[in-house]
Amino acid sequence: KKNYNIALLPGDGIGPEVISVAKNVLNLAGSIEGIEFKFNEKLVGGAALDAVGVPLPEDTLTAVKQSDAILFGAIGGDATDTNQRHADIGIALLQLREGLKVFANLRPVSVLPQLVDASTLKKEVIEGVDLMVIRELTGGIYFGKPKGFGTNENGEEIGFNTEVYAAYEIDRIARIAFETARKRRGKLCSVDKANVLEASMLWRKRVMAIAEEYPDVELSHMYVDNAAMQLVRNPKQFDTIVTNNIFGDILSDQASMLTGSLGMLPSASLSESGPGLFEPIHGSAPDIAGQDKANPLATILSAAMLLKYGLGEVKAAERIELAVLDTLNRGFRTGDIWSAGNVCTVLLNTNTNNYFP
Amino acid sequence: KKNYNIALLPGDGIGPEVISVAKNVLNLAGSIEGIEFKFNEKLVGGAALDAVGVPLPEDTLTAVKQSDAILFGAIGGDATDTNQRHADIGIALLQLREGLKVFANLRPVSVLPQLVDASTLKKEVIEGVDLMVIRELTGGIYFGKPKGFGTNENGEEIGFNTEVYAAYEIDRIARIAFETARKRRGKLCSVDKANVLEASMLWRKRVMAIAEEYPDVELSHMYVDNAAMQLVRNPKQFDTIVTNNIFGDILSDQASMLTGSLGMLPSASLSESGPGLFEPIHGSAPDIAGQDKANPLATILSAAMLLKYGLGEVKAAERIELAVLDTLNRGFRTGDIWSAGNVCTVLLNTNTNNYFP
Ligand SMILES: CC(C)[C@H](C(=O)O)[C@@H](O)C(=O)O
Ligand SMILES: CC(C)[C@H](C(=O)O)[C@@H](O)C(=O)O
Repeated sequence: KKNYNIALLPGDGIGPEVISVAKNVLNLAGSIEGIEFKFNEKLVGGAALDAVGVPLPEDTLTAVKQSDAILFGAIGGDATDTNQRHADIGIALLQLREGLKVFANLRPVSVLPQLVDASTLKKEVIEGVDLMVIRELTGGIYFGKPKGFGTNENGEEIGFNTEVYAAYEIDRIARIAFETARKRRGKLCSVDKANVLEASMLWRKRVMAIAEEYPDVELSHMYVDNAAMQLVRNPKQFDTIVTNNIFGDILSDQASMLTGSLGMLPSASLSESGPGLFEPIHGSAPDIAGQDKANPLATILSAAMLLKYGLGEVKAAERIELAVLDTLNRGFRTGDIWSAGNVCTVLLNTNTNNYFP
Repeated sequence: KKNYNIALLPGDGIGPEVISVAKNVLNLAGSIEGIEFKFNEKLVGGAALDAVGVPLPEDTLTAVKQSDAILFGAIGGDATDTNQRHADIGIALLQLREGLKVFANLRPVSVLPQLVDASTLKKEVIEGVDLMVIRELTGGIYFGKPKGFGTNENGEEIGFNTEVYAAYEIDRIARIAFETARKRRGKLCSVDKANVLEASMLWRKRVMAIAEEYPDVELSHMYVDNAAMQLVRNPKQFDTIVTNNIFGDILSDQASMLTGSLGMLPSASLSESGPGLFEPIHGSAPDIAGQDKANPLATILSAAMLLKYGLGEVKAAERIELAVLDTLNRGFRTGDIWSAGNVCTVLLNTNTNNYFP
């Protein structure tokens, strides 16, 4: 029997609810596939700030580094919190990513036939959309130095950040992207702003160099403004997209909205050799926390990505993915993905155990 | 009789075609309103590169600075051009903006009832969308120093740029945004990434400070990733959006796609006191250049913005706007805005003179 240590970071808002459902699902899938999980639950975000005064306790960072994989809920403050608290919580996530060296963020966006009506885009435009955004996650303007506040030569107050990429950072994310595209439909679109930014010019140059190792993958380049447009105009043209940290932040959120709800979308953040970080792309949704309304599917699908990309347990992962489709096929919907065509709208999270095969 | 000097920069691809139509429209509107235009046509972009070896000739820069307003077509290379040529042409546009000090880029996005079907978004989501993106155009990562290539402490090749804003740059664009919102529906959304970037933290702080001068405008703040999402989820929530140079580049292109075609969308770039730069937001579209297929409405509407924002000739501007609506009401469409509901699809640009009131 195989054993894995999973660090659970429920976080804030709906985080704890969706993590508890996904934990049950992992146990169920494990029991069928002969896998045992040991869960180690730790504080992060606002919950950690309140309990121990810091958003990313030392103890949490140590535990995640020693785990085989990490399942993360969500962190964030609510509308009544100060800008400072929001920033502190945001920075905890950046420190976690940096600490784990998870440079590759994979965000699959597929429009399921069962949910095609949930989108704000026309059916014919999004039917069959199945793309993967790969975002560089530990470099670029999020971490570049120098950054801070100061004064310019006229004594004016300034705020500044540095967008910087080293060749090796681009090379490794490019390789992940080419490998991913190869396993998908063999098409990779690299998004940059190489007509204006030097950091993007190096990005494009390195991606083109790495492309020589992958002659079977069809590579294209797109400026970020055009990419934002094309994702609205004709999202079906995309298979795998690779881009830098800040463009990836924007484009992956935009792309996820093609499905009409964030409640379905998982993500994986991978490092060169350490444990991966798996999390739903939605936030902590404080407005619906504790009301048993949250859609747990994004976290359940993140648990499936954990099995597949984090532990190599592909069969258990596929079992979960099928169970999700089966649940949707039976007509179960949470409020966020409910649409007029659906008869039954019970809340999935209260009943997951009953409907898992 | 009033006289104005207008610099015309047709540029590349479809630029010359749409500029020549807009010039006729300006003359027509002028003749009705007692305004005379003296046009001064100059080279820019690929056309200038080919003719005189530089994409922004000294002579062009001098002429535009001496004009009362500038009407710009489009610049850009085609798929067969080198990355270098593309970058050279892109940089010409940046130099033009910098030379004219046009720090405020106004991009109205309205979904016209006549064209609601052209969008890839559902009718109920975009019907009535009427928003204005105000992009800071001469600061931020587009111009920040230091920038370039080099090596890091490990001898690795790097490419870098600086995102930097000074308080005065934020203050002046914020004032334009508040003034604009005040004349519209009184709502301003400032988009930043203040949970991560120091440049954005200063942005938010200054926007909040300037807000005290405009107690009648309702101000909100949104992170850029969320804004990209909300523009897909529910674009009707927006009235006026203000953001930095790079976020504005991305979001305004994304927003423009809500209408289904770039062919309708004008823009104005304004400075503190010098002449404004007015241009369609579409590019040079080399694939349809010279085929009499281009939609001239974005340039015609840019000419209307030129009259309104550049010369204060509001009546002549409104005359043009009405003429555009009237033309659409009569059923005339170019290919880009043609949709199944329309009977008549003649090309507007060949017939503009006939249908102008
Ligand atoms: C909370 C914030 C720092 C974070 C980011 O920008 O990376 C979030 O938007 C995300 O995409 O995970
Ligand atoms: C051509 C390019 C430099 C330019 C920009 O990024 O500003 C364009 O995308 C635009 O939005 O006008």
